[in-house]
Amino acid sequence: MSKKAQLSTEPYKGVRDFYPEDQALLNYLFATYRRVAQSFGYVEYHASVLEPAELYKAKGSENEEIVNEQTYTFLDRGEREVTLRPEMTPTVARMVSAKRRELGFPLRLFSIPNLFRYERPQRGRLREHWQLNVDLFGSKSVDADVEIVLVAYELMRAFGAQDNDFVIKLGSRSHLDQLVREHGLSAVAGRELINLLDRKGKIPKEEFDSKLATLGVPEGALSSDNEPEDIAKVIKALEELGVSNAVFDPSIVRGFDYYTGLVFEIFDTHPDNNRALFGGGRYDNLTALFDDEPIVGIGFGMGDVTIRDFLAVRNLLPPYIPPTRVYLAVTSPELVQFAMGVAKELREANIPAGIDFGEKKLGDQIKTATKHAIPFLIVIGENEQSSNSFTIKDLKTGEEKSVTREELSNFFNS
Amino acid sequence: MSKKAQLSTEPYKGVRDFYPEDQALLNYLFATYRRVAQSFGYVEYHASVLEPAELYKAKGSENEEIVNEQTYTFLDRGEREVTLRPEMTPTVARMVSAKRRELGFPLRLFSIPNLFRYERPQRGRLREHWQLNVDLFGSKSVDADVEIVLVAYELMRAFGAQDNDFVIKLGSRSHLDQLVREHGLSAVAGRELINLLDRKGKIPKEEFDSKLATLGVPEGALSSDNEPEDIAKVIKALEELGVSNAVFDPSIVRGFDYYTGLVFEIFDTHPDNNRALFGGGRYDNLTALFDDEPIVGIGFGMGDVTIRDFLAVRNLLPPYIPPTRVYLAVTSPELVQFAMGVAKELREANIPAGIDFGEKKLGDQIKTATKHAIPFLIVIGENEQSSNSFTIKDLKTGEEKSVTREELSNFFNS
Repeated sequence: MSKKAQLSTEPYKGVRDFYPEDQALLNYLFATYRRVAQSFGYVEYHASVLEPAELYKAKGSENEEIVNEQTYTFLDRGEREVTLRPEMTPTVARMVSAKRRELGFPLRLFSIPNLFRYERPQRGRLREHWQLNVDLFGSKSVDADVEIVLVAYELMRAFGAQDNDFVIKLGSRSHLDQLVREHGLSAVAGRELINLLDRKGKIPKEEFDSKLATLGVPEGALSSDNEPEDIAKVIKALEELGVSNAVFDPSIVRGFDYYTGLVFEIFDTHPDNNRALFGGGRYDNLTALFDDEPIVGIGFGMGDVTIRDFLAVRNLLPPYIPPTRVYLAVTSPELVQFAMGVAKELREANIPAGIDFGEKKLGDQIKTATKHAIPFLIVIGENEQSSNSFTIKDLKTGEEKSVTREELSNFFNS
Repeated sequence: MSKKAQLSTEPYKGVRDFYPEDQALLNYLFATYRRVAQSFGYVEYHASVLEPAELYKAKGSENEEIVNEQTYTFLDRGEREVTLRPEMTPTVARMVSAKRRELGFPLRLFSIPNLFRYERPQRGRLREHWQLNVDLFGSKSVDADVEIVLVAYELMRAFGAQDNDFVIKLGSRSHLDQLVREHGLSAVAGRELINLLDRKGKIPKEEFDSKLATLGVPEGALSSDNEPEDIAKVIKALEELGVSNAVFDPSIVRGFDYYTGLVFEIFDTHPDNNRALFGGGRYDNLTALFDDEPIVGIGFGMGDVTIRDFLAVRNLLPPYIPPTRVYLAVTSPELVQFAMGVAKELREANIPAGIDFGEKKLGDQIKTATKHAIPFLIVIGENEQSSNSFTIKDLKTGEEKSVTREELSNFFNS
């Protein structure tokens, strides 16, 4: 055989491989996402990562930079322009518009899609990440605003965070629009104001103040003392539901142009990581892309990378426990068929069991069980086969217990 | 507002939107995939849908057609050639090679990736589908072959299929190679033989026999009477484990070039749908792409579309049951805050509850609950608020029951 140049085992740049421990963690995040979203009556939907490119282009010229420079967009063999979705909101708006007559409102939907952005890989900003998306369609009620923020809050709590670990900052796009009108700002200046506010935490205070003055907006106009009435209502309702960490912050505006009302961001209160973890808001006109009568919407997205970083810093990540409960090692390959019969009985009692095929020495078989973090071991030799009795070893404590074949399932299920 | 041309609500050609009922079905398939794979000690991994294009090109010239004409391959902005994975086996081989020193063998892995093929959309052949992939690395034992076929069998059983609903056809690539040598076939003719066998069920018997004769292979050489010893062992071991529907079929060869030993396909026995549902086999040299010392492997893939079609024909698909257990309707929007407190208590008792915001008439609120297939309804009016007692209505039977606020959770949890 001629020696060929060998391929790299690296994944594509900026995306991740999920080995069993990584995947178990991702599954833990997803299970928590699902449990909390479903507890509020949200139901899961999904769509392909491929979308027609026009779905993102149509949103307005301000997004052209994102579409042109930050998405994976390519031509398929039929000359159709296709994009790997960079966010889920346009997709869910498309799907809801398509079946508006059949779906009942208010409509609660969630999904856990992977999203792609073409950008320099760096901490927390991979090219692909997974994101819980929670959306509520068809209600203009301030109670809908309350519920969406509450879902975000309960997610943080379900992950083990306490109220003082994070703060929910609420802002208002409609309040900002009013400000723009009151100070006679042009559309361009209004847009600049949003961009400036969106970068508030990332630029020096002096620069922020000076740019604000240049736009003709007095500092006091953005004081948190000017709390809009709707925001006050949301904060009060949240307090009654046990949420002690929601505050008004006029600098919360969110980047996307489609927001029209309440916007919010969850901030880490850790001094070393004082940044937005995730957020969302109300977008009342997004489905107008598809239909003359838009369906109002409000929602948020919660990515896997920022939340995992948050949980890691606070030691809130669960330890890895493999699904496999017991490993059956064999003293010779002839005993594998017998071991398979034992494993079958374990499976039938809902006890996941792995088998070694006896191609290595017993010590190496046990090393495999340990490498795979399997908690219990049973060594099957000729004695065990003839007596149908086994010794179960706890690989962590070294403790052993002898059981008959009939008692085996009970040991694990009790 | 100027009227703009509106966007289509259709998804990209050949891919699917998963509305709640579709997604619930997909989740049922995935949960069954997971439960069965884990019961045998398999652990879950995952990777990005984006892979370097070279991963598929390297496998040999026979696959060039697939890579060039049937994959989504494009250049990223850094001039890297990227492919949306058309299958998972090269990815898992890459990942196992990358961590061969850390991972213990035998190594049992499974994943449920989405796969892309650029082809004409038709029944069961979409451009994107989801596929359970089960792989076992590091064992040459015939018992490993037995286990992999057993996992496939137990999956079918877990979905509710009986042994006479399907048949497991086992073939052997090594046996075929031997045949090629015995009859002095050239490499090209050997390849033609594989292609011919792979199409056996799709072409008329006369055409098959005539082409076989042209290749110089006597019909008898492919008789199922010439059962290879290894296959006989596998069938016998499976029988001892309760599998009554595994047979030798010399025409089973599988399309991919990387198979080296046992190959198998699960066939539907339904007279109207007598075709392969899924399959797999042994590929002992695939990791040689990455490392001089290959790690032997065996596995199979089971797609969501073919299995769903199979289950639909046999009425084995589960009915749709939403996660939401109860819907709280309100006689006026002022009662929503009170309803939110009730819903909070239900959530704390693990009872998913949705709320109406009272923007529509009561009758329309109840229609929403019915559209969402939510089983129970509670109407909250001023009386309910003041008395803290509620009437729970079963929306299917119309049956009603009165309970106090304290008894509410017990009703759903008992």
